[in-house]
Amino acid sequence: MTSTSHSPVTVLGLGDMGRALATAVAAAGHPTTVWNRTPGRADDLDPDRTTEATSVRDAVAASPLVVVCLLDADSVREVLDPVADALAGRTLVNVTTTTPEQSRALAAWADGHAAAYLDGGIMATPPMIGGEGAQILYSGSTAAYEEHRVVLETWGQSPYLGEDPGVASLYDLALLAGMYTMFAGFLHGAAMVATAGISARAFAESAVPFVSAMVPSFREYAAVVDGGDYGVAGQQSLEFSDLSDMVQASVEAGVAPDVVVAVQGLIRRQIDRGHGKDGFARLYESIARPTTTGAAR
Amino acid sequence: MTSTSHSPVTVLGLGDMGRALATAVAAAGHPTTVWNRTPGRADDLDPDRTTEATSVRDAVAASPLVVVCLLDADSVREVLDPVADALAGRTLVNVTTTTPEQSRALAAWADGHAAAYLDGGIMATPPMIGGEGAQILYSGSTAAYEEHRVVLETWGQSPYLGEDPGVASLYDLALLAGMYTMFAGFLHGAAMVATAGISARAFAESAVPFVSAMVPSFREYAAVVDGGDYGVAGQQSLEFSDLSDMVQASVEAGVAPDVVVAVQGLIRRQIDRGHGKDGFARLYESIARPTTTGAAR
Repeated sequence: MTSTSHSPVTVLGLGDMGRALATAVAAAGHPTTVWNRTPGRADDLDPDRTTEATSVRDAVAASPLVVVCLLDADSVREVLDPVADALAGRTLVNVTTTTPEQSRALAAWADGHAAAYLDGGIMATPPMIGGEGAQILYSGSTAAYEEHRVVLETWGQSPYLGEDPGVASLYDLALLAGMYTMFAGFLHGAAMVATAGISARAFAESAVPFVSAMVPSFREYAAVVDGGDYGVAGQQSLEFSDLSDMVQASVEAGVAPDVVVAVQGLIRRQIDRGHGKDGFARLYESIARPTTTGAAR
Repeated sequence: MTSTSHSPVTVLGLGDMGRALATAVAAAGHPTTVWNRTPGRADDLDPDRTTEATSVRDAVAASPLVVVCLLDADSVREVLDPVADALAGRTLVNVTTTTPEQSRALAAWADGHAAAYLDGGIMATPPMIGGEGAQILYSGSTAAYEEHRVVLETWGQSPYLGEDPGVASLYDLALLAGMYTMFAGFLHGAAMVATAGISARAFAESAVPFVSAMVPSFREYAAVVDGGDYGVAGQQSLEFSDLSDMVQASVEAGVAPDVVVAVQGLIRRQIDRGHGKDGFARLYESIARPTTTGAAR
C-alpha cells in the first residue's frame, strides 16, 4: 500500500516542529490528523485538511502513517505504550530527537507490536520544513521508507541511510556535533577579541568569510582519514597546530579556555605518542580510538 | 620616509611562510635581502632581486623594513638580541606566531632599541600569500603601518587593528580558535558515523553544505552578544541545545567525547544558573565571564 498524494497522515506532538510537519503534509493534500498532549495547539493549522483528534488512539487509527515528534524518547513511550495494539500494521516515523540506542530500542518495541519503524533525524529548523534547504535523514525499515517516500518528501530532501534504525540519529548528532562545536569556537574567539574592545559583530564580519573558506577542508581531512596515512605530504603538521599559544592567550585574557583546552588535549595526545610530524587529520585518532596506544595504523 | 615600490625589504627566517613573503616582495620589485639560520633555503628565490645575507647584522643593515618570520617569540629574541643596536631607526614587522603578551613584550623591546614595531597575524597558508584570499592583520605603530603599507599590501589584504601591538595576534588566535574547534567538531562527527560503517568522505559530503549554511549564523549570535539581551524572541533556547544526547551517543559509540563534553559544560553552566530559556548565544557568558555568578547583565 504505497502512499499517494492523498494518503492520510497522523502527526503526534504539536511543538514548533510538529506543527511545521503537519502544515507541510496538509498543504501537499494529505488528510492530516494531529494530536497534542495539551489541546489548542492546532488552531492555526489549515481547518479544511487538518483534524485534531481528541485521543492518541483516535489519532493513530486515522492513518497508516503515524509521525511522532515529541520531547524525547521517554515521551514517545509514554504516549504510545497505552495504544501499542492500535499500531499493528501501521508505520511509525519517529522524528523525536533520540540517541542511536534509543532509536534502536524504539524500533524493537515497534517490531514487537507489528508496526514498521523508520527513524528520522531532522537537519532543519521548523521554518525550513517544506523548503529547499530542509533535509531529514532516515534509517530503519526500507519497505516503510519506499512506501511513504511521497509523504516524507513533502518536508524536504529525504536521504535513506540503511536498515539500522540508529544510524539516522547517529548521523544527525554527528552533524550537530560539528555545528555546535563550531558555534562554541566562534563565541570563544568573540570573547577573546572582546578583551581588546572589539565587538562580536566586527569579529563576525572577519570570521564568517574566514571560516567559510575553511569548511571545504573537511573533504581533504576526510580523504586522509579514510586513506589511513596521516603522513601524506602537503598537510599542516600536528606540531605546527599545537594550540598552546591559544590556550595561554585565552587564560591571559581571562576567558574560559575549556573548548580550546579540549581540542589541544586531543592534539597533544598524538604528539605525545610520537605523531607530531603527521598531518592535522591525525587528531581523528584521539577521538575515534581513544583507548589504543596510538601505534601507526 | 614612506616605502615605495623600490624600497629594500629584509626577511629573516626562510620557512615556507618566510619564503612566500620574500618571493612576493621580490616579485613586486623590492630589492630583497633574506637570512636563515641554516643557509641554502634561498636557492629557489629570484636571484636577480634577492640577496642572501651571511649574517643577521648584514641582513638588518640592508633595509629600513625588517620582517621577522621565525618559529616563536623566543627565536625572535635569540636572533635579534645580538644585533639590537642595528635596528635603531628601522621598522620591525613581526609575523612570527606569538601570544598577545609576547607581541607586547617584543614591541617594548623594540621601543627600547629605537625601532618601530608592527605585529602581523597571518590568516593565510604560504601558497595563498600574494593572492586574493590572503589577509594579514596588523597592530602596533600607526606610523610604521602607514609608512610601509605599499610593502605590506604585496602579501594580501592588510587591515590595521590599532596601536596595541597585542591585538593582531589576539585576533589571529581568536579566528584560529574558531577554525580548529570547527575542525575538531567535524572529526568528532566523522568518528561517530564511522561506528556505523559510514566513511569520512561520505560524511564530509553532508557536513560541508550543512556547516556552510550555519556559518552566517555567527552574525546573528554576534548581534545578540553585543546587544546583551539573550532573551530575544526567535532564538533557539539553551535548554533545547542541551547536548546530553550527543555526549551519551559519543560514549555509547566508543568515541572520545572530550570536545562535546567541553561545549556541553559551557551550556550546562548557564542552564544551572537559571538561564535555560535564554537563547543559545548565552553560551558566550560561560566563556567571557567564567567567574561571575551568571546574573542577568
